Amino acid sequence: MINITLPDGSVRSYKKSVTPYEVALDISEGFARNVISAKFNDTIIETSTPLQKDGSLVLYTWKDDEGKTAFWHSSAHVLAQALEELYPGVKLWVGPAIENGFYYDVDLGDDTISEKDFNTIEAKMMEIARGKYDFKMRDVSKADALAYYKGKNEYKVDLIQNLEDGTISFCDHSTFTDLCRGGHVPNTGIIKAVKILSVAGAYYKGDENEKQLTRVYGISFPKQKDLTEYLHLLEEAKKRDHRKLGKELELFTFSQKVGQGLPLWLPKGAALRERLENFLKAAQKKAGYEMVVTPHIGQKELYVTSGHYAKYGEDSFQPISTPAEGEEFLLKPMNCPHHCEIFKHKPFSYKDLPKRYAEFGTVYRYEQSGELHGLTRVRGFTQDDAHIFCTPEHLDSEFKEVIDLVLYVFGSLGFENFTAQVSIRDPKTPEKYIGSVENWEKAENAILNAAKDKNLDYAVVEGEAAFYGPKLDFMVKDALGRKWQLGTIQVDYTLPERFDLTYKGSDNELHRPIMIHRAPFGSMERFVAILLEHTGGNFPLWLTPEQVMIISISEKYEKYAQKVLNLLENDEIRALADDRNETVGKKIREAEMTKFPYMIIVGEEEEANNTITVRKHGGEEIGTIKVKEFVDLINNEIKSSLKTFR
Amino acid sequence: MINITLPDGSVRSYKKSVTPYEVALDISEGFARNVISAKFNDTIIETSTPLQKDGSLVLYTWKDDEGKTAFWHSSAHVLAQALEELYPGVKLWVGPAIENGFYYDVDLGDDTISEKDFNTIEAKMMEIARGKYDFKMRDVSKADALAYYKGKNEYKVDLIQNLEDGTISFCDHSTFTDLCRGGHVPNTGIIKAVKILSVAGAYYKGDENEKQLTRVYGISFPKQKDLTEYLHLLEEAKKRDHRKLGKELELFTFSQKVGQGLPLWLPKGAALRERLENFLKAAQKKAGYEMVVTPHIGQKELYVTSGHYAKYGEDSFQPISTPAEGEEFLLKPMNCPHHCEIFKHKPFSYKDLPKRYAEFGTVYRYEQSGELHGLTRVRGFTQDDAHIFCTPEHLDSEFKEVIDLVLYVFGSLGFENFTAQVSIRDPKTPEKYIGSVENWEKAENAILNAAKDKNLDYAVVEGEAAFYGPKLDFMVKDALGRKWQLGTIQVDYTLPERFDLTYKGSDNELHRPIMIHRAPFGSMERFVAILLEHTGGNFPLWLTPEQVMIISISEKYEKYAQKVLNLLENDEIRALADDRNETVGKKIREAEMTKFPYMIIVGEEEEANNTITVRKHGGEEIGTIKVKEFVDLINNEIKSSLKTFR
Repeated sequence: MINITLPDGSVRSYKKSVTPYEVALDISEGFARNVISAKFNDTIIETSTPLQKDGSLVLYTWKDDEGKTAFWHSSAHVLAQALEELYPGVKLWVGPAIENGFYYDVDLGDDTISEKDFNTIEAKMMEIARGKYDFKMRDVSKADALAYYKGKNEYKVDLIQNLEDGTISFCDHSTFTDLCRGGHVPNTGIIKAVKILSVAGAYYKGDENEKQLTRVYGISFPKQKDLTEYLHLLEEAKKRDHRKLGKELELFTFSQKVGQGLPLWLPKGAALRERLENFLKAAQKKAGYEMVVTPHIGQKELYVTSGHYAKYGEDSFQPISTPAEGEEFLLKPMNCPHHCEIFKHKPFSYKDLPKRYAEFGTVYRYEQSGELHGLTRVRGFTQDDAHIFCTPEHLDSEFKEVIDLVLYVFGSLGFENFTAQVSIRDPKTPEKYIGSVENWEKAENAILNAAKDKNLDYAVVEGEAAFYGPKLDFMVKDALGRKWQLGTIQVDYTLPERFDLTYKGSDNELHRPIMIHRAPFGSMERFVAILLEHTGGNFPLWLTPEQVMIISISEKYEKYAQKVLNLLENDEIRALADDRNETVGKKIREAEMTKFPYMIIVGEEEEANNTITVRKHGGEEIGTIKVKEFVDLINNEIKSSLKTFR
Repeated sequence: MINITLPDGSVRSYKKSVTPYEVALDISEGFARNVISAKFNDTIIETSTPLQKDGSLVLYTWKDDEGKTAFWHSSAHVLAQALEELYPGVKLWVGPAIENGFYYDVDLGDDTISEKDFNTIEAKMMEIARGKYDFKMRDVSKADALAYYKGKNEYKVDLIQNLEDGTISFCDHSTFTDLCRGGHVPNTGIIKAVKILSVAGAYYKGDENEKQLTRVYGISFPKQKDLTEYLHLLEEAKKRDHRKLGKELELFTFSQKVGQGLPLWLPKGAALRERLENFLKAAQKKAGYEMVVTPHIGQKELYVTSGHYAKYGEDSFQPISTPAEGEEFLLKPMNCPHHCEIFKHKPFSYKDLPKRYAEFGTVYRYEQSGELHGLTRVRGFTQDDAHIFCTPEHLDSEFKEVIDLVLYVFGSLGFENFTAQVSIRDPKTPEKYIGSVENWEKAENAILNAAKDKNLDYAVVEGEAAFYGPKLDFMVKDALGRKWQLGTIQVDYTLPERFDLTYKGSDNELHRPIMIHRAPFGSMERFVAILLEHTGGNFPLWLTPEQVMIISISEKYEKYAQKVLNLLENDEIRALADDRNETVGKKIREAEMTKFPYMIIVGEEEEANNTITVRKHGGEEIGTIKVKEFVDLINNEIKSSLKTFR
């Protein structure tokens, strides 16, 4: 008999050679039907692998990331078989599961695959799936493995030559065999829907001097409905791609000449960004923050002191030398060292604390050009940064107040759906963390208490704390259910140490302050990108670049349109008048396209009665009303969407 | 007979060998008394130099910069004579006039001069001055000149060895002789007041490997009253030094660790700066500007295209390389290239112009550490920059509107006293300028018309235009009468060419837009420094960091003080309550020191009657009034100091 420990801590005894599938069946038949992958003592195995000793077993279903990985890895085998059958002589290289689906890199010889072939491949894959072929792993010697591929597939031969004898395995299903480390679903029958998404060129070994292979991307699901939903999501995501919307709404642009990953904010984007900044500034002022302004460079020495040079130095933008005096500067990757120097500009006593220095500070970090992506992965970005310097006694209340601020930001911007993660020490490796155990406990407790007190939906993850302190991260779910990491709050004991920051305590002795780093948006760039993808460009009314488009039904009413425009502008409503010589239909369509939340249409009747006809984005008719009523409507909508802070 | 042309264009005939003094006497005796220097055909001469041919003559008095130069140059001779008499064996090197006074570099051997010797030197100088010795120039041969100094003064010998025979002259007065090119007052008697200001070390030839000489600084005046005024001004300037005030008022600081010349704006300074920015932003919005945001770096290539690399490249912050991809970036020395790239983000037609892109853009330019000075000479500064892209037809009106904006800024900030300079081409060297003659004429006329139309007090200077276009600079005079260069407006034909900017004209053809660069403040750093020196830290009420300090006469009235504070804060008045356990006298003194424009004192009577007692900075008593009255008073003062813009 062997003892199997399950994730809930329970231990069950089975005969040696029991399989994960049999354990699942022992738990419940319904559960077993859904189990598609397993992990035993930290190693991914098959659900059919016999267990020979005591150990911990985790069983995965489609709901788990590990379940999806096994599902898509198995689907890659099916894709490979389909390709072998459809393209005789095709040579396989590798085919992993990825974040959304899987791919296989293959050498098609003189053949090519294009979009018109996708249906055929999908049909062949489904034919194999329906065969319900079991995935069966077997160990092979290096000699046998090489013999199997020799003369047929130089890519696999090369792979095998780099493996240790005794660690090599093949996986068979149906008539297909592949070199494989394992981790499959029980059989192909579980795959109920497949979609080939795209083909692309991919260099063998990722080396541009090597041969270009064909990469076939696909995705698969346990239900047809899941695929339909996924394709819909894909379509929606494409429409909401912030790079596309950013261009259409003229929010930002990039210039090859200025440089990749360095956004240029166009007028509408800059105005939107400024509104976001002012919104946060107003709340921060209420919460006792003080704005500061610091330069975008600092001496290399500054970042050696802070430790950032050790972290970013070699891999980031290189130092800036000066012509005469042998100085070396760095683009700042973080604002904290500058704020530490501000804290040092004069001595503080415990009565002066907390000091809360805030700055919309633009920082620069090098990213490889291949990693850049719109506004979410850039080389220069503006953090809505602040650093709170406080005493240990303040930690609890400061942390809670920061959470209040973050929740206020999320609420006012329509992110209703979010979770939090509290990252604490790994209790098994206390040597990895700096600072006293006492301080760590204080800080962790402060975060946990605050998270509890504020009713956050949070998970605690051991070992995820930074070496300098524990932290709290927020993840928001957007309108398409995609998760984005946003604001972060971190406790830091290191920088005050490194910069020798002190305050005079009530005991008249010098003490070290604690530093809290926080950024509710994260960065202006990333936040605007997420907001674009979340709202599809239909920003909250208070934030949107332009709120109202005034359309006159003919030239005759342009003057009246202008009068309405002036009235709205006097009430600080952001409006435009479309005075082009175009049809009303066209003007409405274009105002819809560019996401004006409201349209006002004016013609003979409106001019005669001093009214306006109002229509909402999306088509809802508000009717014919007075300008004053419309202004109230707008102001009420704004008031109800902006949460109150204190 | 010879014909002498005077600056007003009039021509007078005199006998050959007439002297400038005699010409002055011919104009008027009173004028002749004041004439202290002269220029004949672009060469500075003595007032006693006989004129031998036709030519243009300019006569200078103390009011002219050239008059002051002659005065101080002559005073340096007197200083040298005094030093020779007081310190036998002293060796003279050179002694020029400078912006404010003069100095002489001398080798004192084993002697030294310190502050306690200043009176003796001044007395000796005045004794010489009272002798009314004429300054008499005479030509000497190189051999004679060398013979005169040989064995006595190796510094002068070295100077003479580098001169051409036939160009060497000596100047005698009293018993003193000096190697000299000329340009003196008629005689020493005109010097009525002298002051030795300081002594400093100065390396011979400015080379730190050479011997260190002693530099004696002095200043002199034609009236004792002028000296008294000057010393008072010096005292005032010291009190208003923006570096001193910036520290006292906690506006900004510097950190050796961040780097020299890189200001860190403290909370009060950052808030003041933000108010200035918002003030300009509001006016710019009315004037049709659009804000943009661009990164602080750009590829080196961008600045090669713009020509800035050629201008700043070698002598400024060096390029930033990246670890992997061989890219090179530069800290931006100017915002214009980025704005050109923004203009290029989509095609524009003439109907879309002018585009006015504004940005508070922080730029970085390397300055040697010895040249750095507070906020006026820094390595990183934020320009209140904007670039107007317009058609030639717009130039006139755009230029006038920019002037309106600049005048609004100056008016609202208390700079009543300013002049302008229009810099145009040198008509003699048309090859120095790029762009067509037609465009240049258009641009110069636009500036001149605008300056005339706006009734500016301006001077036109030929040859001072940039190679890419003419410009208009503003100089303000501060409260101490010192001149500062502030805002600039420049027309630019080059960048649109270099960046290949185009718009579609009404003829459907592509045309080049014209660019106007402008910055009313110049930079936030420099402007705040000048404003500090101009106001002595007593900023206009709308701008000042804190407007009101509330002082309770004892602890008993702290609650009432807090109530008053809340009332003021509700009306957006920036107030603080001083609740320290100190005497009222001390609290008032400190509020005076930190320049609170208003103080409110509350005690028993005020609490009982729900009033406040108000006192202005400087001591003026406003009396005991209601809070509401005080709020009105503040708001009215702000309204009357802020000019209206459109």
